[in-house]
Amino acid sequence: MSELPALLRANEAFAAAFDGRELARPPRRRVAVLTCIDARLHPERFLGLELGDAHVLRNAGARASDDAIRSLLVSTWLLGTREVLVIHHTDCGLATTTDDEIVRTVREASGVDLSDVAFLTFADPEACLRGDVDRIRGLGDRVPAGVRVTGFMYDVRTGALTEVVPA
Amino acid sequence: MSELPALLRANEAFAAAFDGRELARPPRRRVAVLTCIDARLHPERFLGLELGDAHVLRNAGARASDDAIRSLLVSTWLLGTREVLVIHHTDCGLATTTDDEIVRTVREASGVDLSDVAFLTFADPEACLRGDVDRIRGLGDRVPAGVRVTGFMYDVRTGALTEVVPA
Repeated sequence: MSELPALLRANEAFAAAFDGRELARPPRRRVAVLTCIDARLHPERFLGLELGDAHVLRNAGARASDDAIRSLLVSTWLLGTREVLVIHHTDCGLATTTDDEIVRTVREASGVDLSDVAFLTFADPEACLRGDVDRIRGLGDRVPAGVRVTGFMYDVRTGALTEVVPA
Repeated sequence: MSELPALLRANEAFAAAFDGRELARPPRRRVAVLTCIDARLHPERFLGLELGDAHVLRNAGARASDDAIRSLLVSTWLLGTREVLVIHHTDCGLATTTDDEIVRTVREASGVDLSDVAFLTFADPEACLRGDVDRIRGLGDRVPAGVRVTGFMYDVRTGALTEVVPA
């Protein structure tokens, strides 16, 4: 059973009431958020963001991967964001396993060898968040002057953010 | 002027009314969406997704980058998603420039050399979307059997999705 028909019906209703026609491309509040793909996270809702307010980058684990940094360079240099929130969360799938365990699970389930993939699992959520913030801060003048980077933990049981790495 | 205080006040209000305490980690509707960081896109809203329904992956351009594929491997193998929607959009910043132009703009503004970055700009939005869908489909048995991948274009002027690459 595909979810597509239901998703497209929801989109028709959204488009029928759409009020974002005049929005410009640069994020109005000059904010970029890097967070995880986890289905329990709706960053626009938990930060009170409206259409057009902020860039949202999402990958498994909210990691400061090379691709996240590519997106941040586009966001800051081309579209003027000046504030980057890195938001990890409690109960993240990448914190409860290891790369070796993922490879073994997939091999046992299907025979497929994914040992060439770096899954970016991690053992200590707070240390990982600090490391990801540090990696972005360490870009130095490769991001525009005045860009601030902070780190937060989102609790999937309460919906609340806790500041872990202040400005 | 930092936006942080306002974002954190909005989060307090969200947490005070939070009703997601019981949600499990695997996405309930077994859907993963790959889309762009653009501030005009709120994928949960334009697809009618509730908390816990679907993984959302976002990078500049909604490209099927190595990091997006890492996230899709986690999403499908570890957390059971079986439907991947790749959603590009009209008026994408990466379609209106080139890697060389970005490098030149940054160098002229600041003296910083970003010529070592592949920005994944593109000239033909539909061809790019098809290519990104093809890259994911081309993973073959590196994703679980039964995973379907489709491609859509989101119109930032209307809020409507158009199917470009059917199942």
